[in-house]
Amino acid sequence: MESENMIRYKATVAYDGTNFSGFQIQPNGRTVQGDLEKALAQINKGHFTRIHPAGRTDAGVHAAQMVLHFDYTNTIPQEGLFKALNILTPDDLSVLSLERVENDFHARYYAKSKVYSYRVDNQPVRNPFTRNFSLHHPYPLNQEKAKMALSILVGTHDFTSFCSTKTDKVDKVRTIYAATLAVDEATKEWVFTFHGDGFLYNMIRIIVGTVLEIADGRREVEEMREILEAKDRNAAGPTIGPQGLRLEKVNY
Amino acid sequence: MESENMIRYKATVAYDGTNFSGFQIQPNGRTVQGDLEKALAQINKGHFTRIHPAGRTDAGVHAAQMVLHFDYTNTIPQEGLFKALNILTPDDLSVLSLERVENDFHARYYAKSKVYSYRVDNQPVRNPFTRNFSLHHPYPLNQEKAKMALSILVGTHDFTSFCSTKTDKVDKVRTIYAATLAVDEATKEWVFTFHGDGFLYNMIRIIVGTVLEIADGRREVEEMREILEAKDRNAAGPTIGPQGLRLEKVNY
Repeated sequence: MESENMIRYKATVAYDGTNFSGFQIQPNGRTVQGDLEKALAQINKGHFTRIHPAGRTDAGVHAAQMVLHFDYTNTIPQEGLFKALNILTPDDLSVLSLERVENDFHARYYAKSKVYSYRVDNQPVRNPFTRNFSLHHPYPLNQEKAKMALSILVGTHDFTSFCSTKTDKVDKVRTIYAATLAVDEATKEWVFTFHGDGFLYNMIRIIVGTVLEIADGRREVEEMREILEAKDRNAAGPTIGPQGLRLEKVNY
Repeated sequence: MESENMIRYKATVAYDGTNFSGFQIQPNGRTVQGDLEKALAQINKGHFTRIHPAGRTDAGVHAAQMVLHFDYTNTIPQEGLFKALNILTPDDLSVLSLERVENDFHARYYAKSKVYSYRVDNQPVRNPFTRNFSLHHPYPLNQEKAKMALSILVGTHDFTSFCSTKTDKVDKVRTIYAATLAVDEATKEWVFTFHGDGFLYNMIRIIVGTVLEIADGRREVEEMREILEAKDRNAAGPTIGPQGLRLEKVNY
């Protein structure tokens, strides 16, 4: 046991997910976890450290603030560790903050709620500057219909219809506290924001995929309630691209 | 002569310069001109068409609105040409508009003025989302000093001190109509904006490189006037990175 020499750290990281094969480490492909664990090993003479995130993100999905924890030797000063991590990680991954926490802190179990955004570029011609951060959907959209569809989802529901069948989660009941739509004045993008106690696999990408079908007239607003009640993934719309999705915040 | 079958088009294009070796075609490396001329040839059965831009941009420099002209066969309908160009160009290059113009229109000679922006990420930790569009300069900056330095440059001056020695231009007199600094509330970036009748090679990158030396205290505000009067490239600050620079608009 080295526990007396170990400190538990909570870190907040930001990453542009474009060139990552997701957060979770895997045999092939560059991952956020892989890059961070590699840097931690480099700083600590090659000793491996496992990191534990608040959740995972898929390939191409971004994070403005992902939270994680890890146990690390206390022989390396905190400020030096923080600076070294930012030097040793590539430009598309930054450690925003690092703080010492109690040894029972857990990034996933202690998370109370999460905020995600999904961006849609609704202009006729694709914007080259937002192409990795926004879904290009150049069809006329009705904002009021989109907002009505979103409001149906707010509250505690069984979200089976909005969960990938490739999941190991049995309990599909989640609470959405807020689901909003705003327009980014600078880029003209539609910005969907979801605040909930937790989100199922692909849940937001399926929800926004369905809302876009309603907003562009392929489905009626009322269908949203039927889809929810069907508890059947086939009832909902498509899982749209990962590039528009961003984890904005994890609340504790 | 095929002139009676030719139409002169004015096109406005946007590009993320990150993965381009600049605008101008060259033997090695992907260029904006190369991609556009390749698409025009594909649409017109392999016949080559030369495009003429309002100016060039270096590797890594972006354009929100670059203007160019070209002469093209009138057997291809304009709307079809516009759509085909956007389909045949990669995601980091978009044709925003295409219009028929008089045969004497010239994208470079007719340009009256240009607007460029330069973005600086002044946060302690690099923002992964702006890394390709902003210079990371994490040192305390004095905004008032930066604005005073900029104001000295407004007007008609010989900008030899702010021009790369690798230029073939003899006349270094240019007029800057406006040079401003604002903060982007969403990203906290410093955004420099320059409006002038024309800009010399590397001029804005050298100007902002010098202004940053004044804003972070390495030089005094008054030195800006001395640098201008020296008419010597060595008197000014460094040519900072291309990624913060963006051509915003060409006025006719």
